[in-house]
Amino acid sequence: VKIHLIAVGSELLTPFFRDTDSLYLTGRLNDLGLDVAAKIIVGDEIDNLRSAVRTSLAEADLVFVTGGLGPTGDDRTREAAAAVLGRPLILREDIVRTIEKRFLRLGRPMPSSNRKQAEVIEGAAVLANPAGTAPGQWVEIGKKTLVLLPGPPSELQAIFEAEVWPRLSSRRRACLARLVLKTTGKTESEVEDLIKDLYPKEEDRRLTILASPGQIELHLTASAADSPAQASAPLTALALELKKRLGPAIFSEDGADLEEVVGRRLRERKETIAVAESCTGGLLSRRLTRVPGSSATFREGFVTYSNPSKRKRLGVPAETLETYGAVSAETAAAMAEGVRRTARTDYGLAVTGIAGPSGGTADKPVGTVYTALSDEMKTSVERVVFLGDRERVQIQSTQKALDMLRLRLREKEDG
Amino acid sequence: VKIHLIAVGSELLTPFFRDTDSLYLTGRLNDLGLDVAAKIIVGDEIDNLRSAVRTSLAEADLVFVTGGLGPTGDDRTREAAAAVLGRPLILREDIVRTIEKRFLRLGRPMPSSNRKQAEVIEGAAVLANPAGTAPGQWVEIGKKTLVLLPGPPSELQAIFEAEVWPRLSSRRRACLARLVLKTTGKTESEVEDLIKDLYPKEEDRRLTILASPGQIELHLTASAADSPAQASAPLTALALELKKRLGPAIFSEDGADLEEVVGRRLRERKETIAVAESCTGGLLSRRLTRVPGSSATFREGFVTYSNPSKRKRLGVPAETLETYGAVSAETAAAMAEGVRRTARTDYGLAVTGIAGPSGGTADKPVGTVYTALSDEMKTSVERVVFLGDRERVQIQSTQKALDMLRLRLREKEDG
Repeated sequence: VKIHLIAVGSELLTPFFRDTDSLYLTGRLNDLGLDVAAKIIVGDEIDNLRSAVRTSLAEADLVFVTGGLGPTGDDRTREAAAAVLGRPLILREDIVRTIEKRFLRLGRPMPSSNRKQAEVIEGAAVLANPAGTAPGQWVEIGKKTLVLLPGPPSELQAIFEAEVWPRLSSRRRACLARLVLKTTGKTESEVEDLIKDLYPKEEDRRLTILASPGQIELHLTASAADSPAQASAPLTALALELKKRLGPAIFSEDGADLEEVVGRRLRERKETIAVAESCTGGLLSRRLTRVPGSSATFREGFVTYSNPSKRKRLGVPAETLETYGAVSAETAAAMAEGVRRTARTDYGLAVTGIAGPSGGTADKPVGTVYTALSDEMKTSVERVVFLGDRERVQIQSTQKALDMLRLRLREKEDG
Repeated sequence: VKIHLIAVGSELLTPFFRDTDSLYLTGRLNDLGLDVAAKIIVGDEIDNLRSAVRTSLAEADLVFVTGGLGPTGDDRTREAAAAVLGRPLILREDIVRTIEKRFLRLGRPMPSSNRKQAEVIEGAAVLANPAGTAPGQWVEIGKKTLVLLPGPPSELQAIFEAEVWPRLSSRRRACLARLVLKTTGKTESEVEDLIKDLYPKEEDRRLTILASPGQIELHLTASAADSPAQASAPLTALALELKKRLGPAIFSEDGADLEEVVGRRLRERKETIAVAESCTGGLLSRRLTRVPGSSATFREGFVTYSNPSKRKRLGVPAETLETYGAVSAETAAAMAEGVRRTARTDYGLAVTGIAGPSGGTADKPVGTVYTALSDEMKTSVERVVFLGDRERVQIQSTQKALDMLRLRLREKEDG
């Protein structure tokens, strides 16, 4: 099966575009053993759009067009596809009513412009959109298939999973196995140096390193003709060796992020946590509460941006703030102990630092961060100087704090 | 000038690919008043590569091919382009020597595989690569131009700036002006309905709508032959009309996000704020503190996830929580008033709601959110039911809360 992806939208041809849809589609098609042969990105102009659809339908067997299904005058995917296929667009009153109902739930009338979202190419199967107004369309033309999907990632993904995946399963070409090992606490070159002799030489296996702030991921894939078990066997052996080399730096083998791993362990242990943060401004609380079900373990968070709030909310002694400063090991420890005491939780986790761009000194440059963890046994503090802009320093700081908690939980389980 | 960008490399067709080259090229071409009509991404297979080059040369006047100029067997851009043009590849010994010298400086002999990087399409101008081994190539075919550039961003950018930009300057089509209006509080279709008759009909102007959770942006671009002032004149007129139609829904005309707009106004007014949030779990604090310099206005934040923390930290009366529930207008108002009182700030901003996926009732479905703002004059509460998953509900909730503050500040400035 030769596959093309066409992404539609003039905003995709600006210097600001960040891709989501095509990466998602590629990943899910890979899961079926299907590769993407080409991706094409075109603007809203009907002639460019038509020629992209025409070329791809001539070259490929399966063509996905994403975007351009909205209600505005710029949304011309339906029209362009219908023109290339030489088929009419049919206004489906049942779809109009579905869209109207969606607006009703929002307490508003449907704007008349949304009617065009109910136009369907003759002969197309309608792919219901549980997350938005524009349905997808699945059109078979002889042995070729054209699939239209809306551009907003939540809508595209919901339709793909419910409607497209089942239809594609019969075209599964091979069994793909995938394994992701996520690590923290090591740089990309440190990880690379530890594992570089392990890159697979076989055509059907792949090992890729992906770096983001505070996190290095190893992506392993393998394919086999017959069964998932056959595909995953060589991966398991490779993963075993990688785990031996990287040890506790690996925090996840199932795709879970650090906050999910930590949240899950806390829930299992029926333990509770409260956090106090300054330079991360709420990001640490936000990450811990991102995970559904976090209310079982997360009690409360304090964003103590000012010195008075560190004193009043967390009981950090005025002398500590005066003698050592707000960004110091002593203040971090007092914050972690204070938030644990006042919130009456099993763990208190704290961050204080200088995220920048200003505020650094010779002694404590921008990027200097103290993270502290307190429980019934002890209070630990770590100091790191992170590189990068404000946002990168903030992300790495929360990563470090969450990792302290992970390693403490691990220690308890081992000991 | 119709421009196509072709990016070559099988790694670009994996789910992990993050684009850099095409965004860079797009930005620099825009600077010359040139738009990109389409981007095509293909793997290393010679037949896919050839058909991409052939199609683009048929449709466009200026075609950039990036990547596939390395020394390995997978690097087939030179070969594919030569085949499409029906011209031979000529091994240039002078380029071989340049590459050998580069290796010498690194203290190694040139591997023989690098010789193929010295192969040049007959009639092409060679674009020297100051940052790597593979030179670029500039081929004119009648009125059309094909430009081959290496994929590594540092090499591509170095060659572009030194060799491509000067050659393109003669084709500068126009001066480009750009304007972005950001709105909140209206849906994409509501915005569309208000402005749909304003879409410019002129070739040299464009109005694009970009939607994200809680935010609709209008991107306006215009080009003019002679001067930037000439280009921006029609934009100013269009922006004026859009502002009349959309009124206070527009919160930014300079690219600033809502938290920046609100933070800036608070700083100008030398006023302070504290926030209390439950379902947004720290995201509201995080957004307000994302902006450098926020410590001048942001005093502290409370993530009061549990009922006891709403009572103890914010003084929400137990009766209020019992009678109306944690997710209610009464609790939201008490949170906003409580956080303002305890933090002694000019404003108290609060959010309580049900972000999901569970916790909804018939009366208060998932997505039900109350936002409240308290100042010395009054406390206001708003109720909205947001659609979407946990993350979307959280983002929209913080957007709503920040917008209440923005409108209050506006009111004060007007009155």
